[in-house]
Amino acid sequence: MIIVMSKNASRQEIDNVEKKLTELGFKTHPIIGEIKTVIGAIGDKRMLSTQAISTMPGVESLVPIMKPFKLAGKELKHEPTIVDVGGIKIGDSEIIAIAGPCAIESQESYLETAVKVKAAGARLLRGGAFKPRSSPYSFQGLEEEGLKIMAKARELTGLKIVTEVVDTRDVEMVASYVDMIQIGARNMQNFRLLHEVGLTNKPVLLKRGLAASIEEWLMAAEYIMAAGNQNIVLCERGIRTYETSTRNTLDMSAIPVVKELSHLPIIVDPSHAAGNWKYVGALSKGAVATGADGLIIEVHEDPPNALSDGPQSLRPAKFAQLLQEIEPIALAVGRSMLIPHNM
Amino acid sequence: MIIVMSKNASRQEIDNVEKKLTELGFKTHPIIGEIKTVIGAIGDKRMLSTQAISTMPGVESLVPIMKPFKLAGKELKHEPTIVDVGGIKIGDSEIIAIAGPCAIESQESYLETAVKVKAAGARLLRGGAFKPRSSPYSFQGLEEEGLKIMAKARELTGLKIVTEVVDTRDVEMVASYVDMIQIGARNMQNFRLLHEVGLTNKPVLLKRGLAASIEEWLMAAEYIMAAGNQNIVLCERGIRTYETSTRNTLDMSAIPVVKELSHLPIIVDPSHAAGNWKYVGALSKGAVATGADGLIIEVHEDPPNALSDGPQSLRPAKFAQLLQEIEPIALAVGRSMLIPHNM
Amino acid sequence: MIIVMSKNASRQEIDNVEKKLTELGFKTHPIIGEIKTVIGAIGDKRMLSTQAISTMPGVESLVPIMKPFKLAGKELKHEPTIVDVGGIKIGDSEIIAIAGPCAIESQESYLETAVKVKAAGARLLRGGAFKPRSSPYSFQGLEEEGLKIMAKARELTGLKIVTEVVDTRDVEMVASYVDMIQIGARNMQNFRLLHEVGLTNKPVLLKRGLAASIEEWLMAAEYIMAAGNQNIVLCERGIRTYETSTRNTLDMSAIPVVKELSHLPIIVDPSHAAGNWKYVGALSKGAVATGADGLIIEVHEDPPNALSDGPQSLRPAKFAQLLQEIEPIALAVGRSMLIPHNM
Amino acid sequence: MIIVMSKNASRQEIDNVEKKLTELGFKTHPIIGEIKTVIGAIGDKRMLSTQAISTMPGVESLVPIMKPFKLAGKELKHEPTIVDVGGIKIGDSEIIAIAGPCAIESQESYLETAVKVKAAGARLLRGGAFKPRSSPYSFQGLEEEGLKIMAKARELTGLKIVTEVVDTRDVEMVASYVDMIQIGARNMQNFRLLHEVGLTNKPVLLKRGLAASIEEWLMAAEYIMAAGNQNIVLCERGIRTYETSTRNTLDMSAIPVVKELSHLPIIVDPSHAAGNWKYVGALSKGAVATGADGLIIEVHEDPPNALSDGPQSLRPAKFAQLLQEIEPIALAVGRSMLIPHNM
Repeated sequence: MIIVMSKNASRQEIDNVEKKLTELGFKTHPIIGEIKTVIGAIGDKRMLSTQAISTMPGVESLVPIMKPFKLAGKELKHEPTIVDVGGIKIGDSEIIAIAGPCAIESQESYLETAVKVKAAGARLLRGGAFKPRSSPYSFQGLEEEGLKIMAKARELTGLKIVTEVVDTRDVEMVASYVDMIQIGARNMQNFRLLHEVGLTNKPVLLKRGLAASIEEWLMAAEYIMAAGNQNIVLCERGIRTYETSTRNTLDMSAIPVVKELSHLPIIVDPSHAAGNWKYVGALSKGAVATGADGLIIEVHEDPPNALSDGPQSLRPAKFAQLLQEIEPIALAVGRSMLIPHNM
Repeated sequence: MIIVMSKNASRQEIDNVEKKLTELGFKTHPIIGEIKTVIGAIGDKRMLSTQAISTMPGVESLVPIMKPFKLAGKELKHEPTIVDVGGIKIGDSEIIAIAGPCAIESQESYLETAVKVKAAGARLLRGGAFKPRSSPYSFQGLEEEGLKIMAKARELTGLKIVTEVVDTRDVEMVASYVDMIQIGARNMQNFRLLHEVGLTNKPVLLKRGLAASIEEWLMAAEYIMAAGNQNIVLCERGIRTYETSTRNTLDMSAIPVVKELSHLPIIVDPSHAAGNWKYVGALSKGAVATGADGLIIEVHEDPPNALSDGPQSLRPAKFAQLLQEIEPIALAVGRSMLIPHNM
Repeated sequence: MIIVMSKNASRQEIDNVEKKLTELGFKTHPIIGEIKTVIGAIGDKRMLSTQAISTMPGVESLVPIMKPFKLAGKELKHEPTIVDVGGIKIGDSEIIAIAGPCAIESQESYLETAVKVKAAGARLLRGGAFKPRSSPYSFQGLEEEGLKIMAKARELTGLKIVTEVVDTRDVEMVASYVDMIQIGARNMQNFRLLHEVGLTNKPVLLKRGLAASIEEWLMAAEYIMAAGNQNIVLCERGIRTYETSTRNTLDMSAIPVVKELSHLPIIVDPSHAAGNWKYVGALSKGAVATGADGLIIEVHEDPPNALSDGPQSLRPAKFAQLLQEIEPIALAVGRSMLIPHNM
Repeated sequence: MIIVMSKNASRQEIDNVEKKLTELGFKTHPIIGEIKTVIGAIGDKRMLSTQAISTMPGVESLVPIMKPFKLAGKELKHEPTIVDVGGIKIGDSEIIAIAGPCAIESQESYLETAVKVKAAGARLLRGGAFKPRSSPYSFQGLEEEGLKIMAKARELTGLKIVTEVVDTRDVEMVASYVDMIQIGARNMQNFRLLHEVGLTNKPVLLKRGLAASIEEWLMAAEYIMAAGNQNIVLCERGIRTYETSTRNTLDMSAIPVVKELSHLPIIVDPSHAAGNWKYVGALSKGAVATGADGLIIEVHEDPPNALSDGPQSLRPAKFAQLLQEIEPIALAVGRSMLIPHNM
């Protein structure tokens, strides 16, 4: 932690800051410049209520030197984490495709889609039972009924299942059905919900918030990890910018940045990022070449009649073809994919 | 709703879209341009699963004509809503100041601050008992103990109290203590929480999300209103942009835009927007002149020792002086303030 | 300047950085933390090619302590600058209103508008002769012919005139006609143009770039000042964000932030910020209460037939009324306005 | 063009709008909804001063149906444009690598780098002779001296050369030296400069503005094309967002969006986007897999001693290795690269 004193700070003010830091257990190293003085403070910033310092008279600003995340960062654990979802390993050499419709609409259509995405090479099955919709008048999901349909699809196909939870009251129930719990973008800073899924032993798919910085995203992971659950897969799904030609702006750079800062695996959701199925293929290929550990793609039998997010969904045949096109890219970057070759 | 067909759309594709719209209960009006055809569709968009149309072959885009919010908009209710919080009227001619510390830290300091902000002219008392902090290692609030302290402060000063709720499981308990429930920025799209506070009869202070559009914000209000609670005060608290000289960018234009689109009152939180007490005074004055119905300002006895958000807090004396400076501005824009004049 | 070394930096790497800094004329102060070492470097950063350091092995990041602007900042000049435009003082106690149409369209209409904004209380007259339009097919301005019309309006009304220059080749010619030169948002980082207007002795109205940080904006002022021209008025005109309900997001906080960092005066352009005349009144009032030194407002006789930016223009009568409404706010914040009272 | 009338619009107001549109040469098609009336207007929007309509009483908003760009869009020219830079074809099946230092610093170092990037497989040579630097105290480039060095490098290596122009007064001179002219991000809306390069017959590398929308970017291309020069290569180089872990946010989606809207080729600049050489490799691979037609990468012999943008530059050996790694990705997406294989 570096404390920058303002150029008008008095000798007394500088002494007071040093004294306060010492009381808080820090060692201080003042550097007196021609115009400003800065004070280096060595110690554990997590012990420090930073505003205790930043609001003292004469203090201009504080510059953190250490990252605020510990468990999610590489300081304590350098080797990459591989998250095991019922035998499927995310973060290992294999590129993992997660697929399925945005919302579960009926058992018949869901099972049909499940069979097809399995045949195409998907390794996990997605589906929304609780839908956070921006309008109260939109379809909100089948809730527990949807989870039962997902469980049937798992039985039928052998695919492990992942779904979003949106309420602390549902965490236990959702965890009893699925293999992986998703935290959606809108709940990335719902800290109670993060804590609650941190108390389960289920792997967590943690989507980046609509306008979350990478640091805030890793701090959201830290919340879950601090509660005891270390099995987190990050999911980049586009951030909010001024550009309107896509629903969100896919921040592809988040892949190498996360790999630099954290040991957690990261996958990409091109469907929500683009908001338009036309761009899903190009972005999926780009994500794998950039270093993503997997993809989560919306697939629907009949996009025009989807109850949610139809415009960004691929039909199963298109999805199968896309995985075929992605495989050589995965190989070109030294990864593998387990997909059928006799299609 | 206007459906724009792509320039390569076939006659058959256009006919199919018209047919589908008719099935969904819309009246259609095709306009055949030189390059593109557009179809006007008259009917209630809320009945329409828009992707049923937007993903049909030949469709380029959909243009909504009506706003998605009904209860929060002016179509059904044109006169301004005045929200009554235990006798204090927000949205009427009086500018309402809400003040208090970010977090409740101890009974002694909270009561002391409460007495001072009351003396300065605050009309409602704020305080955080449940704090959504970006780090799991930061102070998370005194929880129910904090609510009891708030209730004591109300007893002592007569000020009505407002606090944030962060978990659906706490809504009933929080509502039993306070006069107004706050939904924080990070929970603006926690739809379950919105629904839950919509089931209470307490006025709601709905903060704008970190990167929420004004339309999304009004849709969050719509969620609460659709559940039965019409007593909502909107609170602009800054949005996320690329600019780093303030914590967030206060979107002052949101005041006249909300007044144009909605009948709900709107107040401004200059403390969270600026993140720096130095700018709170200027922005408070600006907000009142721009047309805000009130202000919510962080006040702390001893900002350097605050457990949360010290850098943006005013000391009580500074706050009292600020209200004195705001009053002539309120009068200049035809509003009033009830503050003591014999200070 | 603080150099943060990565946690894996070797003793040799740290020594190399210190040696390099010493060669560059800096005094170094290493602080060895438990995990990372940081090096304080005292000296004039402007002498330093920062990447000479930031790309050395073992260096994680550089943290500047001093602001990059010198002439535009308060370190060398603390008292506020008052810019004199032909006798009109911007930055003094009087709130200055600049008004006129977006583009000069004809002599007759321009003179008519000039007379009316003068009567309303405007102190400077604006008008575009060179228009930077986003489409090559839009009206690009009357060029020198427009400047001649402006000069006639000055003769007729006594109002000093301000217009935008968009090409280095035109600076001398434009300067020969007008009293103040405007640099538009799209040219805020057209460094050659900045340098060129810096060589004139005309006051400069420097608009903030579409997505410029306040620091970049002050560095643009620094360019002009470094070339010799110290008479700069900053103009906040809204920044680009994700919000679409206004054309740009007026960053009202820029007013107190600029007052904190710089001695230069700052005015606000609510017309370009909002893009809609309905919001111009509220934002003008808010800007004055927040501390702006003036306003620049688009006024057009007949907005529906304006060749540029009609939707955001006020009619003269509306403008006159607005100034009447602003005056009591100016007085409430201890400023003055020179406007007629017998209207 | 669709005109949306406000819900309170009178019959007379609707008639007036129709009449005005008819006068302007449009055919009108009113659609009378239950709450609002919309008017479809068929004709060439470029003839229309849109505010002539949008400011008429009763008009709520205008919705354009056609894109504002004609020459840059696909309506008049559907097949992809291949830009020929002295025999090197950009937009064809080969992935083109452009490389070189940010700024030309000396003849010796520049020629050395030129030889090495040529050996690695670069097809065009970049270098800055006129540098738009955000500080007036930073190195501004060698100007014409730099162009002479570039010409020598071309002679030595056979590589065609590309450099940025920043002043209308320099366009002719720069065009006399180089094979391709670059318009930098900060000048993307310097319309005079666009027009001036449009008058030359040199291919143009048009970088996306710091915060430009894709539509504005294509309109900048339209400016150049409207002046007569059709040889434009677009360059995505990151946009400004709230995220600070990279210098800019590389908008990878711009690649498929541009391919959807325009016939112009598009390349990617991962160096300026990331601002950190560590991320250049991952983003380069991702860009090629996403569909970019080429890359422009900063390469410097000795990044710590670069006079500009050292932190984002690769050393020549690293660059050579990167092209080797990119080639299999190019092949995987059906493209080719001409790089040496006996390294």
